Amino acid sequence: MAAREVVTELTGRGRTLASCESLTAGLFAATCAAVPGASAVLRGGLVTYATEVKAHFLAEPLAQLERQGVVSAETALAMARAARRHCGADWAVSLTGVAGPDLQEGHPPGTVFIGITGPAGLESARQAQGLAGGRQSIRYGAVERACQVLLEAVRAQG
Amino acid sequence: MAAREVVTELTGRGRTLASCESLTAGLFAATCAAVPGASAVLRGGLVTYATEVKAHFLAEPLAQLERQGVVSAETALAMARAARRHCGADWAVSLTGVAGPDLQEGHPPGTVFIGITGPAGLESARQAQGLAGGRQSIRYGAVERACQVLLEAVRAQG
Repeated sequence: MAAREVVTELTGRGRTLASCESLTAGLFAATCAAVPGASAVLRGGLVTYATEVKAHFLAEPLAQLERQGVVSAETALAMARAARRHCGADWAVSLTGVAGPDLQEGHPPGTVFIGITGPAGLESARQAQGLAGGRQSIRYGAVERACQVLLEAVRAQG
Repeated sequence: MAAREVVTELTGRGRTLASCESLTAGLFAATCAAVPGASAVLRGGLVTYATEVKAHFLAEPLAQLERQGVVSAETALAMARAARRHCGADWAVSLTGVAGPDLQEGHPPGTVFIGITGPAGLESARQAQGLAGGRQSIRYGAVERACQVLLEAVRAQG
């Protein structure tokens, strides 16, 4: 389970974690919290399910979010920044995308962007590949990918 | 599953929902989001795992939170108010308590307080009874109780 590795890696480095979740709606944070010892790492997070709530926490006008797309690398990055700032964490992860069954902004279910912010100005956002299935499969898959993307970034910082 | 009833009841009344979660760390919101049609109801939420993050979102001094107890009806109520305010929701639910295995503030695992805020100034907080087992059992049980407490409050408003 990648969440266990996340807690182990961050604990070893004395680093903390926050999240901002849209389609997963808290599943990433809850998955990390399920790992024993998570309280040394997990600060907290945001669940920005409605676009108006994203606008509030990201401190971005609703029109701008809608223009750039809620399901986009740009929004994922802004979400990760918001989580890191609000929760005072070293690392933050964001998840925005389409769990389905309907399209969102023209994107099919399984379209998911993951944002990461970390120490020393590290920032990245990428689209997760190969997520498919029903709503819950996409969500669990997205949480797993987010853990992997975070682990790569944390390990790359040495 | 009580979360399904929550989504059905709130959809029927045209009401929205937010959450502020401590020990469950997003599990309540994610459980609601797993119900088809949840996007008509669920606005978003806060995961306030660390006490400093609670203080930030609740806009309460850390010392005050520690004095009244993080695991208390008072804090549960303040958490529900914060969720409702930040997310612009009609109803908000909060969960604060001890998943274990260690005591917190002298409270044993299974000690959980649930806060509710709703329309027309409705506010309540109560201790959930009979939660036991391991960390995950307590969390899943707490989410189920929170759904039941919310359903009672929503139905009582007619």
